[in-house]
Amino acid sequence: MGAVKSKRMPRAVREQQMLDAAVQTFGQRGYMTASMDEIAELAGVSKPLVYLYLNSKEDLFIACIRREAKALVEAVRAGARPVLPADRQLWAGLTAFFTHTARHPDGWAVLHLQARTHGEVFAAEVTAMRADIVTFVTELLLAAAREAHRDPHLPSGEVAGLAEALVGAAEALADWANSTPGVTARQASTTLMNFAWAGLGDLMAGRPWSPPDGEASDTGAGVGAGVGVGVGAEDTDAGAAVHAGRTSPVR
Amino acid sequence: MGAVKSKRMPRAVREQQMLDAAVQTFGQRGYMTASMDEIAELAGVSKPLVYLYLNSKEDLFIACIRREAKALVEAVRAGARPVLPADRQLWAGLTAFFTHTARHPDGWAVLHLQARTHGEVFAAEVTAMRADIVTFVTELLLAAAREAHRDPHLPSGEVAGLAEALVGAAEALADWANSTPGVTARQASTTLMNFAWAGLGDLMAGRPWSPPDGEASDTGAGVGAGVGVGVGAEDTDAGAAVHAGRTSPVR
Repeated sequence: MGAVKSKRMPRAVREQQMLDAAVQTFGQRGYMTASMDEIAELAGVSKPLVYLYLNSKEDLFIACIRREAKALVEAVRAGARPVLPADRQLWAGLTAFFTHTARHPDGWAVLHLQARTHGEVFAAEVTAMRADIVTFVTELLLAAAREAHRDPHLPSGEVAGLAEALVGAAEALADWANSTPGVTARQASTTLMNFAWAGLGDLMAGRPWSPPDGEASDTGAGVGAGVGVGVGAEDTDAGAAVHAGRTSPVR
Repeated sequence: MGAVKSKRMPRAVREQQMLDAAVQTFGQRGYMTASMDEIAELAGVSKPLVYLYLNSKEDLFIACIRREAKALVEAVRAGARPVLPADRQLWAGLTAFFTHTARHPDGWAVLHLQARTHGEVFAAEVTAMRADIVTFVTELLLAAAREAHRDPHLPSGEVAGLAEALVGAAEALADWANSTPGVTARQASTTLMNFAWAGLGDLMAGRPWSPPDGEASDTGAGVGAGVGVGVGAEDTDAGAAVHAGRTSPVR
């Protein structure tokens, strides 16, 4: 990124530099305000080269949306661990999501704010990504429900609604975390676990969900948080880490 | 509404007819596609009269956003009952929200889809309304937490995050309910109560939250649902209605 410029640089590398600069500019200054001049300058290339590679401001923006959407979906999928118990799976997935949105605030702003605000063509790109994530979450919840249930308490229509609620809550919390000073990825994950897993009922009665011990080195949840997290403790996928129980709140 | 036309009709009444027609047209056909011609025709007035009253398509759209936002916020505030126990309060508020969005799908589409997709000026109108609702929900949760707690387990920063999660989940579920055939306001409310109050943990263990008996005539939750709801049973604000417990799922 930045003012690197070399005639020998391969096209793919240079294109990624342009996209890096574009995501940063669109995310921080907004799609309408951002100019191709400043994007080219930030990428360290000439404006004609940006047009040559990406064609137009609209196409450049769509390329940004697609790249950021792909990265987010991959991060969430990589975070999920089907071998874990359901609550640990959810915790791992949420942590992956909030860690990614915290590390890429401009990418998240492009996806969740800019792309949805500037016309239906851009919004449709994000809608497609969102549908992918809802489907993925629905499958996770269905698998967890099948595992947990002696009898089929949760029909698939209900699970689809729960997945929508979970994704909607996660989106709102990512916006909130990225715009509220001092809120870390871990805190956002914990808030949503308390909300979605323990539920407000248990939460208000002083019974929050607690993250497992020693998983900071495991999921990357410790980004910027580090409060009360045992660093360096090894975790395994076998779910060997013991839950801290529901007796003490973790923030 | 419709093709009513009278020279003696007061301006305020006629303006509401124009707004009715505009909300319907913007909500169903989208802001870009909707034409002032069809809005005037649907309102039963001439196009010049629409411009005379509402000035421009942009101003007409902003007037629609403001009217629908005000109606939604009022419906949610009217639905909340501070004298009830916390779970009943939440149930009443959610039921009011989903009943309103189910009864006014075009208004909801204007607020949550159209207004946010067509530029920052419109999006800012919705952001202001959303902030109102988040503040209101935060206050409700803080009051409930204060009531429930012997010790202060829920600091206000955590409650702000929970309010964001709840509002985000409700928005996503309203979209889902309005676009999924057969999903009623009561079902959407129940899904969110299960998600947010009971929590996925209890839910997967077969312990959903159950709505109180006999509140259909109380909150209007029975709109289009009516499954297993005692009709005509009187409810009181004193919370006399007995919870059905957490042993059987309600859908």
